[in-house]
Amino acid sequence: MLRVGIIGATGYTGEELISILLKNPKVKITYLARQQDVKENIDKIFPKFFKKISLPCQKFNLPKALELCDLLFLALPHTTSMEIAPSLLKNNKIVIDLSADYRLKDVNVYQAWYCKVHKDSLNLKNAVYGLPELYKEKIKKAKLIANPGCYPTAAILAIAPVLEAGLIDKNNIIIDAKSGVSGTGKKLSADLIFSEVNENFKAYKVNEHQHAPEINQVLSDLAKEKIETTFVPHLVPMYRGILETIYLKLKKKINLEAVTRIYKNFYKNEPFVRILEANLPETKFVAGTNYCDLGFKLDQKKNLLIAVSAIDNLIKGASGQAVQNMNILSGFKETEGLL
Amino acid sequence: MLRVGIIGATGYTGEELISILLKNPKVKITYLARQQDVKENIDKIFPKFFKKISLPCQKFNLPKALELCDLLFLALPHTTSMEIAPSLLKNNKIVIDLSADYRLKDVNVYQAWYCKVHKDSLNLKNAVYGLPELYKEKIKKAKLIANPGCYPTAAILAIAPVLEAGLIDKNNIIIDAKSGVSGTGKKLSADLIFSEVNENFKAYKVNEHQHAPEINQVLSDLAKEKIETTFVPHLVPMYRGILETIYLKLKKKINLEAVTRIYKNFYKNEPFVRILEANLPETKFVAGTNYCDLGFKLDQKKNLLIAVSAIDNLIKGASGQAVQNMNILSGFKETEGLL
Amino acid sequence: MLRVGIIGATGYTGEELISILLKNPKVKITYLARQQDVKENIDKIFPKFFKKISLPCQKFNLPKALELCDLLFLALPHTTSMEIAPSLLKNNKIVIDLSADYRLKDVNVYQAWYCKVHKDSLNLKNAVYGLPELYKEKIKKAKLIANPGCYPTAAILAIAPVLEAGLIDKNNIIIDAKSGVSGTGKKLSADLIFSEVNENFKAYKVNEHQHAPEINQVLSDLAKEKIETTFVPHLVPMYRGILETIYLKLKKKINLEAVTRIYKNFYKNEPFVRILEANLPETKFVAGTNYCDLGFKLDQKKNLLIAVSAIDNLIKGASGQAVQNMNILSGFKETEGLL
Amino acid sequence: MLRVGIIGATGYTGEELISILLKNPKVKITYLARQQDVKENIDKIFPKFFKKISLPCQKFNLPKALELCDLLFLALPHTTSMEIAPSLLKNNKIVIDLSADYRLKDVNVYQAWYCKVHKDSLNLKNAVYGLPELYKEKIKKAKLIANPGCYPTAAILAIAPVLEAGLIDKNNIIIDAKSGVSGTGKKLSADLIFSEVNENFKAYKVNEHQHAPEINQVLSDLAKEKIETTFVPHLVPMYRGILETIYLKLKKKINLEAVTRIYKNFYKNEPFVRILEANLPETKFVAGTNYCDLGFKLDQKKNLLIAVSAIDNLIKGASGQAVQNMNILSGFKETEGLL
Repeated sequence: MLRVGIIGATGYTGEELISILLKNPKVKITYLARQQDVKENIDKIFPKFFKKISLPCQKFNLPKALELCDLLFLALPHTTSMEIAPSLLKNNKIVIDLSADYRLKDVNVYQAWYCKVHKDSLNLKNAVYGLPELYKEKIKKAKLIANPGCYPTAAILAIAPVLEAGLIDKNNIIIDAKSGVSGTGKKLSADLIFSEVNENFKAYKVNEHQHAPEINQVLSDLAKEKIETTFVPHLVPMYRGILETIYLKLKKKINLEAVTRIYKNFYKNEPFVRILEANLPETKFVAGTNYCDLGFKLDQKKNLLIAVSAIDNLIKGASGQAVQNMNILSGFKETEGLL
Repeated sequence: MLRVGIIGATGYTGEELISILLKNPKVKITYLARQQDVKENIDKIFPKFFKKISLPCQKFNLPKALELCDLLFLALPHTTSMEIAPSLLKNNKIVIDLSADYRLKDVNVYQAWYCKVHKDSLNLKNAVYGLPELYKEKIKKAKLIANPGCYPTAAILAIAPVLEAGLIDKNNIIIDAKSGVSGTGKKLSADLIFSEVNENFKAYKVNEHQHAPEINQVLSDLAKEKIETTFVPHLVPMYRGILETIYLKLKKKINLEAVTRIYKNFYKNEPFVRILEANLPETKFVAGTNYCDLGFKLDQKKNLLIAVSAIDNLIKGASGQAVQNMNILSGFKETEGLL
Repeated sequence: MLRVGIIGATGYTGEELISILLKNPKVKITYLARQQDVKENIDKIFPKFFKKISLPCQKFNLPKALELCDLLFLALPHTTSMEIAPSLLKNNKIVIDLSADYRLKDVNVYQAWYCKVHKDSLNLKNAVYGLPELYKEKIKKAKLIANPGCYPTAAILAIAPVLEAGLIDKNNIIIDAKSGVSGTGKKLSADLIFSEVNENFKAYKVNEHQHAPEINQVLSDLAKEKIETTFVPHLVPMYRGILETIYLKLKKKINLEAVTRIYKNFYKNEPFVRILEANLPETKFVAGTNYCDLGFKLDQKKNLLIAVSAIDNLIKGASGQAVQNMNILSGFKETEGLL
Repeated sequence: MLRVGIIGATGYTGEELISILLKNPKVKITYLARQQDVKENIDKIFPKFFKKISLPCQKFNLPKALELCDLLFLALPHTTSMEIAPSLLKNNKIVIDLSADYRLKDVNVYQAWYCKVHKDSLNLKNAVYGLPELYKEKIKKAKLIANPGCYPTAAILAIAPVLEAGLIDKNNIIIDAKSGVSGTGKKLSADLIFSEVNENFKAYKVNEHQHAPEINQVLSDLAKEKIETTFVPHLVPMYRGILETIYLKLKKKINLEAVTRIYKNFYKNEPFVRILEANLPETKFVAGTNYCDLGFKLDQKKNLLIAVSAIDNLIKGASGQAVQNMNILSGFKETEGLL
């Protein structure tokens, strides 16, 4: 039985991690920590866990974490994980970090987008970007996983197959992304109160979102040349779900069947990518699951491939993918507790 | 006092027309008709109108309509208006049609998109496309207004200024559009029940939406050459509001201030277009109003202009614009009852 | 032209007051103040007011308020209004207070529920409870209006007619109340973020809500004996609207027609109370209006009258009622700018 | 491995049954039927089941059902189940009926509320009301389960303990119930389209809801005398969840601790009833679970017990409870696949 801890158990992704791990017969949650210096039982913080799990949640304590856990999930705000990860890694613990701290390989880029000097460039070098559909072999041997952002997960899975196939113009990638509010994390922000979100739709951080460099880094890595996408996120009045409509300029004529074949082949061994043919993805199809659904349309006159990608941002876009990574690097079945 | 009737008073746009016209001191609602052959008082159909307006609503009756009205709004489903409009026009009534029946000038295009032969090509020729910001002079003299569709209103107002200025590549216009559910009209469709819409986000009719040819026709008219856009609509889990994110390839470098200046100048005399500078449009800014809000961002690296356009689909996208057209052609103040 | 100011213009009721007053031809908004010490134009704070009203909003300044206004609305949090009202009243300004500060006549009760000593018992004595349907004559001569709470408005209007008629058992009044989230005011509370409210329904402050003593005070005043109700509020996942289901034990058998007649007669001269007969009230019937809708059912076997009451909490439950009070005491038509 | 079939697999409760049964290692779904005469794969009807279950869903066929299943769930509209159940029972199949057809023991009451003559009074006699917390021993031996309605489940579990303890006045039970829209079943009704439900709250079928006689029958059975409750349902703008606020007149003074003790003792062996003490139930605490949460407040002045009960109407109020019943009568662990 793998003993796992969650640092940052009171946020959306922490809450979701608990829910998912409770269904996994291979692990036992042994330690929960939070940022606030208040000790409360987790089923008091989340009454929904009453009678399901009873464990105190308190301020992070290194000796306790080391004693109680084999593997730790860091479900912390950006710039906070890098304060904690080094001491865990030094003590031979496996770390799966859901923040952005170990995603961007270039510390200057990190600093530019997260407005903070990176404090752990040593571990950053060895961190593995935890997108299993692209980097499974590396994940198997990883000690530190940089769990991908929600928008990048949906975008990269939709673009990678045709990028690798050399089908698209690398300079003309437009990602029009839409997310439910849980994507922004649980925080007391005036933007997130019900009256601001309900019955409203808006674009935000247009070409200024911190997930843009993450998408660009991974696509550049795949293409082996620098790629810059146009990335425009929007806020949808709903709790969970991301849908991205991605406009890709095709380099030559190709029909929908051929496109679909490329995607199906690319993901033929992947249990969590579904290629839809009868319909386009909708966020409700993937709500509560670890699936990424992909669907396609062509604008023949413009020779555009319109790829639509949907995930549950809290699951495949965060906690589910983190558990998928845990399963892979622990030698469990990849789908354990995730179906 | 202008005596106005509404044919199709029980749908979303009919309901909204009543609300708006009740605030207009220049008009009196004198006649209400519906498609169903059931006579009910309008305040029984819509209890919210109780004590505000008391008028029977019944199956359309031509002699009654002719006797009681000077001007008629047709708030009917597509392919139905052209059955009724000719007899009203023949009797010298003014008709403002909120359906698509008189929007597309080419009857073959109409037939291809609405799956019905056009029955009134005579009046079609003289119908004026009722987008006041572009065609005000023609509207002043019109007898038959083809009131624009909701998506086209938001799209055309966002694109026209830079298209006319010759700034953009006419072959690279991508319109990623998002609408609340009232945009589809009030109908008993399995897609529109609460459980399907709530907590869901999806694309639909990708490059197959009947508003695409309407957008293309007007932009082609402005550009004096054939324009085909890529138009991808999405459904947002909310009642009212449209937001469109429009990607326009710039032909040369230009900064945001210059772009804004072009738009402000283009709409300098228009009371219902607001150019935002401090922030981007959100649907809640325009909810319940006849405004179209426009805002802009540049993706300098890609030389893309990202234009964001927001309207209340039931007001500027339908009933408000219809009343704006009525004001203009009746010689009233354009903003009468609309502020 | 009456010159009016709003102190607390940035909250929900302040925002709504601006919207309503802009439609009133008898008044001009001349002054806007907020609690924060930041000066911003109101159309920057609320982009929806762009091109509708342009006025700076800044920290309250007494000399300015006195110079610019004849009447002031205080749309402030409870316990704040009593700091400002005295100096306005001393200078012969009319004050309409939307907070609870001048509603409870007994300073001990006030202190028990609002946890603060009352600082202005002098003006409290002369404050008039601004429920026009019950206290219109007093309102006409008032200098200081205590504008009623939202829950009390819906409850009292539903109970008063049968209470006055001596039909109900005064010791058995159960008010099961449901409100949209705007009822709690605009504040950054963890309870009010979208993810907590959306897809959730709950009771809160059961028999501990500060509106209970207000309801009890007014009913006791009407009955001329002490009345204590059971008051249970709930939070509905929507923005605006209150619906209350009120269980009243009838002292003798009576049929629905007779009940309806009593209510219709009681409110026969009131423009903002609608007695529904064909259906029961729903919050959407009154959304955006100053109406209170009332409807009734009988449980014959139990001899219970079930009264259902609906208002828009921001309008009849706050800002609309405040303007109704302003109209009455200024000698304007009671419905001016409110229909 | 128990082979189970679902008749009525395309509605809300059918969909939920599939989701729940897929997590149960003791059963295999072997047969799916629908009312429409169209054969489609279930993962085409519900794209969310793509790659999770692939089974055709078609019009009910008795020989096939008999051949493929040991136990059948009837997730059919009321008045339809009694057409199908007899032939299944005659062939020694176990039937768990989620409709109301076998709930009301008096065929006259059934006829009065469901407007149809009961056609299967023979099996009705032996049907067991499947509320495991009250009738577990009978369920163990049942061949036909009448699975309880959603409102009755929440109401009865909240009332039974104090009713049995003789603490409450049996003539003064008021149930103010609130439900998300999935409670009404999946049907194309004008009342259920998004625009009618969203941002609206209303009472409906006041004292005319078909769940009232069901509640009354079970409470009367427990009390061994005729009980009639006052039952007022409301519609909440959300998808799933029921919360009921129940007003119970206490026969003598009792404090909250004593009340709580009675409930905890009553349900001490029940895995799916949770007695909350730190807070009151909220629908989100039980969303997606088979729990019924109960919490209490006292109105000391009126000697009223205010009991608040919350369930997920689709799970504990329908499909989860059906599976709980299946587990019990099949000798599986009661919680199998339900935690």
